[in-house]
Amino acid sequence: MKIDVLTLFPDMFQALDHSIVGRARALGQVDMTFVNFRDFSTNKHHKVDDYPYGGGAGMLLTPQPIFDAFDSLEARKPRIILTTPTGKPFNQQMAEEWAKEEHLIFLCGHYEGFDQRIHDELATDEVSIGDFVLTGGELATMVMIDATVRLLPDVLGDQASHEDDSFSTGLLEYPHYTRPADFRGLTVPDVLLSGNHARIETWRREQSLERTYRRRPDLLEQIELTDHDKKFLQSLRD
Amino acid sequence: MKIDVLTLFPDMFQALDHSIVGRARALGQVDMTFVNFRDFSTNKHHKVDDYPYGGGAGMLLTPQPIFDAFDSLEARKPRIILTTPTGKPFNQQMAEEWAKEEHLIFLCGHYEGFDQRIHDELATDEVSIGDFVLTGGELATMVMIDATVRLLPDVLGDQASHEDDSFSTGLLEYPHYTRPADFRGLTVPDVLLSGNHARIETWRREQSLERTYRRRPDLLEQIELTDHDKKFLQSLRD
Repeated sequence: MKIDVLTLFPDMFQALDHSIVGRARALGQVDMTFVNFRDFSTNKHHKVDDYPYGGGAGMLLTPQPIFDAFDSLEARKPRIILTTPTGKPFNQQMAEEWAKEEHLIFLCGHYEGFDQRIHDELATDEVSIGDFVLTGGELATMVMIDATVRLLPDVLGDQASHEDDSFSTGLLEYPHYTRPADFRGLTVPDVLLSGNHARIETWRREQSLERTYRRRPDLLEQIELTDHDKKFLQSLRD
Repeated sequence: MKIDVLTLFPDMFQALDHSIVGRARALGQVDMTFVNFRDFSTNKHHKVDDYPYGGGAGMLLTPQPIFDAFDSLEARKPRIILTTPTGKPFNQQMAEEWAKEEHLIFLCGHYEGFDQRIHDELATDEVSIGDFVLTGGELATMVMIDATVRLLPDVLGDQASHEDDSFSTGLLEYPHYTRPADFRGLTVPDVLLSGNHARIETWRREQSLERTYRRRPDLLEQIELTDHDKKFLQSLRD
């Protein structure tokens, strides 16, 4: 996969040198380029922002540097993702879809945002990572790259390890415990020490259902439940 | 404000040296420390992870290094935020609340996550930044720090510039345009060039309402609408 990022802060992306995304890059599973669109400004002071028409606080990113930076990319049918709080909320299904693409281009906003013509003419996807405001699109872009790249083949050491993730099953994940069985008097639930795999499976499913019911009931409406699931959820409501 | 971060990847947080968070640190508005909890492992190979009880893929973070790292912090009634996909979704209201705190501690997960006793005993807030899975809590933590720190007094150059943000008004932001009025044949809406401020205000409010109606109708249920707003939304429905 090829990923190009247009940003005013290419150095921030050093955060992607580490951990699993770093490994994916070392393995050659993903090739990333970070382009500072300020370098494309034809303004003699390399300005990239200007005042909004119609008044208002803050500065906007002007079209010229971004359009020209974009024209410089070798782009065969890429997906062009613009990060903005007004976009569609990013989710695991989008990460799964993007992980199948050959080429992603991310545009990172800054200041009050982009001139609307950048949204209208360049973006194929306008995406937000949540109902909050960031100082720029860089962290949002890193989040989306991380969520996408970890799904590429062979990137996670153990293929199985993203199948049980929260959201992959549509439920929140059950609680996990590791050694020691007693830490400062805090103990592990007996069922996990029982060696009875059928009981463990049932307990985990019920814990996932209970967590989802208590914290994110909206997710329960979107998945298929077994008869046992429905009976268990009914017992929580009673 | 004091922020401590417990993480296996302190170097990733160089991303917070830049831009507005970098400025807040330079101004002394926020003091951040990044602690590698691997340094607290009593295991001779500095291991911090172990297999899950009851089986399953992936490794879990064990209690000992994190409890001991936590004990090493000078902590007077801090808010202790644990990043996990099973947490409460992060939003602008949480950022506003956290911006009033004196001390925030973030725990960054990795691998399959934390031993549940870490959630139960240490965290005051379990928070997710969205319905997607990341390779670790570091990027989620940076997002939450960025959203919070930009709200501290004097951090944004222009105080006014976060009052119109998406989510601050409860609506998605209206489109913005800057110079030139004609870029490659793409033009700015006439109203913004009119100099008529009342017309501009009305146009912006209607654009915000229309965007929110089309992209995030869920947000409309949570805010107070004027009679004009209601009439305008009704015209979109007709």
